[in-house]
Amino acid sequence: MDPKSKKEEKAGLVADARESLQLRAGQHIELHSYRDATNVNYQRMCLDSEESAGVPPKELRSAARSLINALELRSVYMSRIGTHFPTTTRNFVDGKYPDELRKQKMKSKKTSDTMYPREVSVEHWGAPLQQTYEQQFQLRRANGIVEVTQKDGDGWRIAPALEEFYLSRDQFYADYTMVNDLLADGPLKTFCFKRLSLLNSRFSTHVLLNEELENEEQRNISHRDFYNVRKVDNHIHAASSMNHKHLLRFMKKKIRTDANVVVMKDKSGKEVTLSELFGQINVRPYDLSVDMLDVNADKDTFQRFDRFNSKYNPIGRNELREIFIKTDNYMGGKYFAELMLEVFSDLEESKYQQMEPRLSIYGRATDEWHKLANWAVKNNVRSPNARWLIQVPRLFDIYCTKGILANFDEFLNNLFMPLFEVTNNPNSDPQLHEFLLQVSGFDSVDDESKTESEDLTKDSPKPADYTSKKNPSYAYYMYYMYANLAVLNAFRRLRGLNAFALRPHCGEAGAVSHLSIGFLTSESIAHGIKLVNAPALHYLYYLAQIGIAMSPMSNNNLFLTYERNPMPVYLKQGLNVSLSTDDPLQFHLTKEPLMEEYSIARQLWKLTFCDMCELAKNSILQSGFEDDLKMRWLGPGFKEEGVLGNDIACSNVPDVRVSFRHETLVNELINLYKAKMLPK
Amino acid sequence: MDPKSKKEEKAGLVADARESLQLRAGQHIELHSYRDATNVNYQRMCLDSEESAGVPPKELRSAARSLINALELRSVYMSRIGTHFPTTTRNFVDGKYPDELRKQKMKSKKTSDTMYPREVSVEHWGAPLQQTYEQQFQLRRANGIVEVTQKDGDGWRIAPALEEFYLSRDQFYADYTMVNDLLADGPLKTFCFKRLSLLNSRFSTHVLLNEELENEEQRNISHRDFYNVRKVDNHIHAASSMNHKHLLRFMKKKIRTDANVVVMKDKSGKEVTLSELFGQINVRPYDLSVDMLDVNADKDTFQRFDRFNSKYNPIGRNELREIFIKTDNYMGGKYFAELMLEVFSDLEESKYQQMEPRLSIYGRATDEWHKLANWAVKNNVRSPNARWLIQVPRLFDIYCTKGILANFDEFLNNLFMPLFEVTNNPNSDPQLHEFLLQVSGFDSVDDESKTESEDLTKDSPKPADYTSKKNPSYAYYMYYMYANLAVLNAFRRLRGLNAFALRPHCGEAGAVSHLSIGFLTSESIAHGIKLVNAPALHYLYYLAQIGIAMSPMSNNNLFLTYERNPMPVYLKQGLNVSLSTDDPLQFHLTKEPLMEEYSIARQLWKLTFCDMCELAKNSILQSGFEDDLKMRWLGPGFKEEGVLGNDIACSNVPDVRVSFRHETLVNELINLYKAKMLPK
Repeated sequence: MDPKSKKEEKAGLVADARESLQLRAGQHIELHSYRDATNVNYQRMCLDSEESAGVPPKELRSAARSLINALELRSVYMSRIGTHFPTTTRNFVDGKYPDELRKQKMKSKKTSDTMYPREVSVEHWGAPLQQTYEQQFQLRRANGIVEVTQKDGDGWRIAPALEEFYLSRDQFYADYTMVNDLLADGPLKTFCFKRLSLLNSRFSTHVLLNEELENEEQRNISHRDFYNVRKVDNHIHAASSMNHKHLLRFMKKKIRTDANVVVMKDKSGKEVTLSELFGQINVRPYDLSVDMLDVNADKDTFQRFDRFNSKYNPIGRNELREIFIKTDNYMGGKYFAELMLEVFSDLEESKYQQMEPRLSIYGRATDEWHKLANWAVKNNVRSPNARWLIQVPRLFDIYCTKGILANFDEFLNNLFMPLFEVTNNPNSDPQLHEFLLQVSGFDSVDDESKTESEDLTKDSPKPADYTSKKNPSYAYYMYYMYANLAVLNAFRRLRGLNAFALRPHCGEAGAVSHLSIGFLTSESIAHGIKLVNAPALHYLYYLAQIGIAMSPMSNNNLFLTYERNPMPVYLKQGLNVSLSTDDPLQFHLTKEPLMEEYSIARQLWKLTFCDMCELAKNSILQSGFEDDLKMRWLGPGFKEEGVLGNDIACSNVPDVRVSFRHETLVNELINLYKAKMLPK
Repeated sequence: MDPKSKKEEKAGLVADARESLQLRAGQHIELHSYRDATNVNYQRMCLDSEESAGVPPKELRSAARSLINALELRSVYMSRIGTHFPTTTRNFVDGKYPDELRKQKMKSKKTSDTMYPREVSVEHWGAPLQQTYEQQFQLRRANGIVEVTQKDGDGWRIAPALEEFYLSRDQFYADYTMVNDLLADGPLKTFCFKRLSLLNSRFSTHVLLNEELENEEQRNISHRDFYNVRKVDNHIHAASSMNHKHLLRFMKKKIRTDANVVVMKDKSGKEVTLSELFGQINVRPYDLSVDMLDVNADKDTFQRFDRFNSKYNPIGRNELREIFIKTDNYMGGKYFAELMLEVFSDLEESKYQQMEPRLSIYGRATDEWHKLANWAVKNNVRSPNARWLIQVPRLFDIYCTKGILANFDEFLNNLFMPLFEVTNNPNSDPQLHEFLLQVSGFDSVDDESKTESEDLTKDSPKPADYTSKKNPSYAYYMYYMYANLAVLNAFRRLRGLNAFALRPHCGEAGAVSHLSIGFLTSESIAHGIKLVNAPALHYLYYLAQIGIAMSPMSNNNLFLTYERNPMPVYLKQGLNVSLSTDDPLQFHLTKEPLMEEYSIARQLWKLTFCDMCELAKNSILQSGFEDDLKMRWLGPGFKEEGVLGNDIACSNVPDVRVSFRHETLVNELINLYKAKMLPK
């Protein structure tokens, strides 16, 4: 049977089903489900008036209002920081939908991009600096946020163009509290839980009915398959981006070639060569094995983040970590640069794999940025297949205890002031300027499961007064990151420069309130496995299509075994999830860690190539690669809604799947906006 | 703390434990557990008089007798076919143990090989043929078994040197029935189930107490780690030994370079070129994708072996299977030869990976062997990292239905007569002679889950009378394979040639009685997942340390999901299990299928590198690689019992683990032989 007649037959089946519905009920039943105008043919599941989801009207209305408020709030937050909010949901929030839904176009490949361009194309790297700008600003610190000021009469005030991007901590606290309240709202939880269950069974039904159709669409697309769709490893730490065998090989090579190179100074200030160091450790290069290296996570790391962290020390030696996988050491991070270039070279060879490795900025000193940029630019550590993210470990308490920092304001100053300065005047640090063009976002990292002494409150100390040796809460850290980045991004746009997405680790462990923070502040998050404990947020992450870069193999070694990982459930429900490796050094065995991650997921959760390509597509959308690249990888119309935005010849995701996802999302939102209008 | 003092401390702990036992009980308790003389220090678990395992003495005695009978039977069967039976168990069967146990040597590396040399060293490949032998034999068929006869007076009778290797079907039937009876013996099942549970908890305790010691042993061994221990893929089909991406790449290349090469003749006898063929299929080379190829197993193959088999047809086209992954086609299997050489080249590059790929002999025609050997020798398809196994599909019913074969005797004749002939006179087919030097064994393959019309009975037709279009049972096939191979092996040894192991697919699906057959006839088996349904056999497979090459990823796609796979349980209990890929074409995604298999198992079942190295060591022991290679890979004393046979510098398996395994096995056997002596 040729594909066309099969599709027609399918369409026929749908028509039959409808008729039989009418016959059985003895009257016409209005099918409430939205069907998009592009008319992809497949068998749809229609429910007769499903809006109530078995919830009393009053509770329904209240739940809908709460959810819509939250979506509106996120929309504001995302506008402020200048990151993506999905068009479909935005159109509902902005009041265009559901009324204008029927006006949706037929499928035609045309872009209609209205987003802020966050990025500057990769071609600009290394371009000569712009001359000094006409418009001059002065920078000052106020309560942990950098203020960009302009001359106004005799004094300086916040530049009018940037004013709207400032967010007070009190406002943030109010919004945070509002979202947190949703976590405790019983009827809302019930409603969201039911909707999520329905999403689940909708997907199961869809697959039962249309799997063959999806497979066929994939088979009929020439050339494209899972291997040659782009896949981005959205969450990977640079220092652990090579697998343990790779690190071992590299170390052995260095001991051979660089035996007499001075690699560090010991505590007494004496220079130590590589061979002397290994002499101290009492290991000959030939002897080295991955067992000795002992960086791969084992049974003992489960629920032991502390042990996991110490796995970063090869042979349990901090010196080796320092020498081989740090950017700032006696050798100026030479070895780490070489290692990264090897990782990048493997990546470029694989052609269809990209990554977003994290480099650390600790906020301990003002010159960290300069040194890091210097490392990257001097060693030319970059790749067309990679974009940097900056990870900021939440380790203020340690620096404070050690006397390195006096208060939290210093931490923030070290973190953000250099960025504002170089944005104000790129010539002040040309290397940092250039490096930042290759940075697409910020990550916030640490063990979330550590108990937090005190959450953010109205009375939390101001940064300059935060001198406690207790670590600030996740919320406290994240407010200051978000608030500074919102202004910084606006400032950089003003300067014609790229802006940064906030993409923290969130919901890996610890309190679910972290996920409230993520919901307000973050373009996407890493992990999110704790969402299952907060149905309201879980549903909101779905509605707002917040990216979740999941790393089940990492979870399996640290916080959650494979069989309990919610990844397959999220995928079924239609959350915007992707697969990433987190730490190949600690977890993966093969030379293709990302493929290994996909392979295990495929085996365990019986993912089809359609599912796998959907994950890969999500990973591109979540990533910080430039729009011109995304166009090349997903088709020029990739920002359009639903099937309009899908080009199966690029993504290998069937239109049937995309249409199903889009219609399902639209239906959820229609239900919500209808329910909001229910009489009190 | 240095390792030594740690070990001493451990030893001290054991001593303490003993003392406290004495103190608490107020009297000396004899610790019944065997402790080997090599005195590896670790913390042992001792039970006070454990022999009864909670079973009444009478049942215990009867269970022990049944099990020992079965072991003795296997010992006879293994001697007859000339394959491995583990020394420890053999020493019990032969009556040397437990009495001589205490005479065991201290650890010193010295071999004491008394096995038949099954193999001729790889260096002999391609050596000039021996001249015709002095001793002359004539071959004849009798009831499906080839008889090797010598002149005796006027007539010919079976050569006296070979007489003892003949096994009558009636005898086999009696033995088979005896083993099958064990499956139904209630008290025996209980006893075995309890012993297996105890093995389980023994291992858990061992790991709890000694894990750190094992890790330390591994870390202290220089150079050696999981990556550079040898791993053999014991079970892989040649036709699916490349992954789907590899096959795709190969096909694309061929269409580019060989467009006008004639690759087949169509039904009308017209020659068809590669480009014409793809023209018929209506696919341009650029268009080809793995989706289109559609050879990777998906959700639809679960419990559907038929669908799985059809996955061997790229793009659903049998012609493509014929052209690309068959040895016997219009082009003389040229493409398949090239593909295999690519697979071998990857293998050799990986250096530490070996494989035992299966090639098919169907038994449809007398010249199959000649053609296959011709293919292998002419194209020089061989590798130091690979040894062939011959797989015989159980498809007699199909050939019979199609009229290709008239009766089962013809099938057996096609299968075995050429082997006897070339053994009798290598010059009769020099290529086959040479090819057989690279073959290490036979596999029997097909869907075990197909219902069997009738099991082997005394009244089953003789092969010449077997003209039914119903397929003979597993037992029927296996008896004739075993009986012929037993004689063939003895004959080949007589000629100074290598012999073959019988290593069938067994216990993947279908009746557990297949596992009885495996127990009697086979050196090792592939799959064995059904053992969990037959505690007596399960325990016997443990006691006889029968190799089980397991492929959980294959099971996951066909018969048993990962979470239910018994592999981790078998490993804990100490069965001789290894990991293999079965069909990378259908299952695996990465370029390193065997590593992918290990990686998933490690993640899911939290295997340590000690477990992984134990699996790798098992895979070498199970394999058909020559003893000189095994010595190189495992140390010269590898055939010794327990730690005497372990060289951690080669195997990376800690002595602690090996000692634990050995002592546990010895204890089980001691218990059994003691129980046998219990008064009636």
